[in-house]
Amino acid sequence: MNPSGIITLLTDFGLSDPYAGIMKGVILSINPRARLVDLTHEIPPGDIAQGAWRLYEAIPFFPKGTVHLAVVDPGVGGKRRPVALCTGEAFFVGPDNGIFSRITKGTAPIECAQIANDALFLRPVSPTFHGRDIFAPVAAHLSIGVPFDALGPPVRDLVSLDLGSVEEIGDALIGRVVRVDRFGNLITNIDQATLLRFLGPRQGVVTLAGLTLNGIQRTYSDVPEGKPLALIDSSAFLAIAVSTGRASDRIGKSSGQIIGCRVMVKPAVN
Amino acid sequence: MNPSGIITLLTDFGLSDPYAGIMKGVILSINPRARLVDLTHEIPPGDIAQGAWRLYEAIPFFPKGTVHLAVVDPGVGGKRRPVALCTGEAFFVGPDNGIFSRITKGTAPIECAQIANDALFLRPVSPTFHGRDIFAPVAAHLSIGVPFDALGPPVRDLVSLDLGSVEEIGDALIGRVVRVDRFGNLITNIDQATLLRFLGPRQGVVTLAGLTLNGIQRTYSDVPEGKPLALIDSSAFLAIAVSTGRASDRIGKSSGQIIGCRVMVKPAVN
Amino acid sequence: MNPSGIITLLTDFGLSDPYAGIMKGVILSINPRARLVDLTHEIPPGDIAQGAWRLYEAIPFFPKGTVHLAVVDPGVGGKRRPVALCTGEAFFVGPDNGIFSRITKGTAPIECAQIANDALFLRPVSPTFHGRDIFAPVAAHLSIGVPFDALGPPVRDLVSLDLGSVEEIGDALIGRVVRVDRFGNLITNIDQATLLRFLGPRQGVVTLAGLTLNGIQRTYSDVPEGKPLALIDSSAFLAIAVSTGRASDRIGKSSGQIIGCRVMVKPAVN
Repeated sequence: MNPSGIITLLTDFGLSDPYAGIMKGVILSINPRARLVDLTHEIPPGDIAQGAWRLYEAIPFFPKGTVHLAVVDPGVGGKRRPVALCTGEAFFVGPDNGIFSRITKGTAPIECAQIANDALFLRPVSPTFHGRDIFAPVAAHLSIGVPFDALGPPVRDLVSLDLGSVEEIGDALIGRVVRVDRFGNLITNIDQATLLRFLGPRQGVVTLAGLTLNGIQRTYSDVPEGKPLALIDSSAFLAIAVSTGRASDRIGKSSGQIIGCRVMVKPAVN
Repeated sequence: MNPSGIITLLTDFGLSDPYAGIMKGVILSINPRARLVDLTHEIPPGDIAQGAWRLYEAIPFFPKGTVHLAVVDPGVGGKRRPVALCTGEAFFVGPDNGIFSRITKGTAPIECAQIANDALFLRPVSPTFHGRDIFAPVAAHLSIGVPFDALGPPVRDLVSLDLGSVEEIGDALIGRVVRVDRFGNLITNIDQATLLRFLGPRQGVVTLAGLTLNGIQRTYSDVPEGKPLALIDSSAFLAIAVSTGRASDRIGKSSGQIIGCRVMVKPAVN
Repeated sequence: MNPSGIITLLTDFGLSDPYAGIMKGVILSINPRARLVDLTHEIPPGDIAQGAWRLYEAIPFFPKGTVHLAVVDPGVGGKRRPVALCTGEAFFVGPDNGIFSRITKGTAPIECAQIANDALFLRPVSPTFHGRDIFAPVAAHLSIGVPFDALGPPVRDLVSLDLGSVEEIGDALIGRVVRVDRFGNLITNIDQATLLRFLGPRQGVVTLAGLTLNGIQRTYSDVPEGKPLALIDSSAFLAIAVSTGRASDRIGKSSGQIIGCRVMVKPAVN
């Protein structure tokens, strides 16, 4: 796979400190032509699951051969391995802590390597900032065509996080809220294909934390302003929203508490 | 007009979700050489007027042929039209909901088109993320020279928001606070030309929410630290500031309440 | 020194207003090929010392010939001079208010010029936004090879802020917390070389606001989760952290109050 020259960055570094900018300086020192795109630097500190979901959402929209650099790395300097993945569509570089769990969930063959070739590193390697000293330089090297198998030995036991499964229990499909976005939309782990397979031609009723929503709408304005609705969001997951409002404000819980909430879909009666 | 290759982005998507990054992936898939510049992604969700003001402020500083992508789009998927504008200086792409109200306020002839040519879209088009599926790809196509008249039929009834007019009532010029910036400066809709025409050689007295300010200063340090002042800001609008402080903290109101506050200018007596 | 074509931006403008984007428009109007990298725009408004520390931390990681644009400028339009520096490794452009204090602390010869050549400015120059009208265009001109001595006359009395010195008092090394980062880490002004010289082969005990920490650890996971530790951070300064937690939450003070806290290192008794 030829590199596209694009490197995306997803971290929990925030934007107040110069850490993300420093990684870009390291990348441009190796590949002055790299195209850098921030996915987000606002993953809550250390929240690997949030990183995994948001990374997964973004990757289909980048050209083939893009390098995705994902650094949510609370175990930096400890035993977790630095790894890189090659899916045939894109490269991924980051810590082996589950941040790539959604990407490796499919059945496509994925190459995975432990990053061990320290000729590619910035040295000395700090024990507290592998984003700068290992992951950014390796991403830069991949973006200029350094072959994937130059990174290190293959990994066959990549860490995988339990990001919550979707289950059919009796006549109900049960999932979880996995993300609350800027607009207060509650995004679940129930994907469109699973939902359609479950409902077939039947209408659905979605229940969540005391809310009951009849039908799956097409878009926000399909219900009156201020009313909650269920819909398939732009990444093809079931979501709960409020037309020109915030669904997260409807649930008597903080944003952190909403994540993990059980979502139930049942076929409508008659 | 030749495209400059620059595309600016202004949205209400925030920076926690990958939505802005996703739009950039879409753009770079079509125009790998596009130069992407974020104006802001922190427009308050759905606040079209704030989007209109901040977009207007930025556009004079970009090269001719720049494409400005503006997505504050609470009506996404509903009846509002996707539109593009060509002013002879720049292109604009976004929803027809008033976000371009300040730009079309002048008298220069502006071409306006409904975006209808779905060969330019990312497909399938999600009903909830036209920023990704319609606006970003159309902006990218304009940036590589796709002719403006390939987008769709002309629009002659572009939606225009009432962004607040400036009125002369008796011996007073009356405007409104339209924006509160990061520094707590209160920016009004009274532009320098209107103010100078009204005051002529006379000194002005500015009144706002209980504050009375004598004279229009040149810069913050023209008054002692901690003192409020009126001045013409860098975009040529009357603004109220506090030297090394925050004017917004002087008014007993929240930032949201300050927007819309009446500002009165009178000539100084003797 | 040949310019690298990279321009970094560090400001206190935040990301809600279009000010940083406007500076980028100005730069790209002069140098359409400039590579723009945000260090941060989230310096607390007017906090020159925070700007000075974060700029200093980032500069080693950019290629030779990079232009660093630093605009934390509470005195804009007043008497402070606009200046530029050339260290032989990089260029710096910004107000003469101490923002470059850390950079000029070393002993390397540094050229410094007052920016006076208004042929390089955007005109008219607003008295309230020199970032846009003076600093951004001068940075852009340096990035395309305009010679440094074309900017203006040399400056020999650059403003230098007292950023806090490190002192040996009796058997203790005394420094200060100078920065609290996104992860709640407390970063001091005690650099690794000074610390090693002071401790020699002895173990250290770090005391800060009631916390006593035995030894200097290598990384966060060297202590159990939730435990505080002292370590050398990735920029080679002594820092206080909590393993998978926030050191700033351990001190009964707000983030603003923590900055300036006295940090004492003593050799361990044994």
